[in-house]
Amino acid sequence: MKLLETKILEAGHVLDSDILKVDNFLNHQVDPNLLNKMGEDMAKHYANLGVTKILTLEVSGIPLAFTTALYLNVPMVYAKKTKSVTLTDEVYTSVVKSFTKKITYDIKVDKKFLVPGDKVLIVDDFLATGAALQGLSEICKQAEAEIVGYGIAIEKTFQNGGKYFRDLGYDVYSQAMISSFEGGKVHFQA
Amino acid sequence: MKLLETKILEAGHVLDSDILKVDNFLNHQVDPNLLNKMGEDMAKHYANLGVTKILTLEVSGIPLAFTTALYLNVPMVYAKKTKSVTLTDEVYTSVVKSFTKKITYDIKVDKKFLVPGDKVLIVDDFLATGAALQGLSEICKQAEAEIVGYGIAIEKTFQNGGKYFRDLGYDVYSQAMISSFEGGKVHFQA
Repeated sequence: MKLLETKILEAGHVLDSDILKVDNFLNHQVDPNLLNKMGEDMAKHYANLGVTKILTLEVSGIPLAFTTALYLNVPMVYAKKTKSVTLTDEVYTSVVKSFTKKITYDIKVDKKFLVPGDKVLIVDDFLATGAALQGLSEICKQAEAEIVGYGIAIEKTFQNGGKYFRDLGYDVYSQAMISSFEGGKVHFQA
Repeated sequence: MKLLETKILEAGHVLDSDILKVDNFLNHQVDPNLLNKMGEDMAKHYANLGVTKILTLEVSGIPLAFTTALYLNVPMVYAKKTKSVTLTDEVYTSVVKSFTKKITYDIKVDKKFLVPGDKVLIVDDFLATGAALQGLSEICKQAEAEIVGYGIAIEKTFQNGGKYFRDLGYDVYSQAMISSFEGGKVHFQA
């Protein structure tokens, strides 16, 4: 998505050779018009596939998941991060190992909000190792919900996450695909 | 706002005599069309006041803050909850004592995103004791930003938060004002 790539070049900052800081438009300060257009674009990609729910993970996936849900006219559910939960009758739970934060945390979704037969589009702001997407996928599996695809704002294609889900046959749509940060600059996949 | 009141009566659940559970449309599963209309209504209330930023607190304030920002065509900033931070050159920080969760946590906003002269509309999903709003107000004060008002989805008028900010002269606009949960039911302020 050209609009997002342009914004990344204008406003993103490369840190530590493998981290892209986009806190001035995506995940601390949010540009609502950009996120609205990103949601429209995401919804267009997954239109006519019978999506019934958008699933994301708090916090930074929420704006894009929200606008995608608005354009697909379906509810958006965000998994909650939690210190530690045991699987009960009431919630689905999984574990996420954060690449950037070097920590592991549990996530949970109330069973009311994902049911067998749901067709789920999983949305997140970043795809690197795919740890968050794996946690969300595990929750869909517990709910016996079908995963329609993975909609991502920014994918780092030099890490393994995107390849992993594509090799499993899933439709992974990333609006900006970064192939390297060589020389401290963002290079998009050709 | 009639639409929100109707939704609360249809889908909200009163717990423990003073907690309203709205996790099926506001803060776990989100109804994007409702939130879109709430943002439009909120923006209309604060139109023509020169608002330059919407400020909220992660997580559950984000959808309403986002749609309000979209309609006012200004950036949305969410303060981040954090274990503990010291005030540095880079962030404004404050403290919030959560009424529902019985815990205290620090919040922070990068100094890049609030500057002297900003006219800030503070938005949140709930107003009860006003603890979150006080934390966000403190951050605006540190930034020497002006607070234009407080835009809230659901206010519990039987707690002190709303009165506190109105007595200070602020425009507090709550889209649903709950006066009691008498008999386990939601009663709106007449």
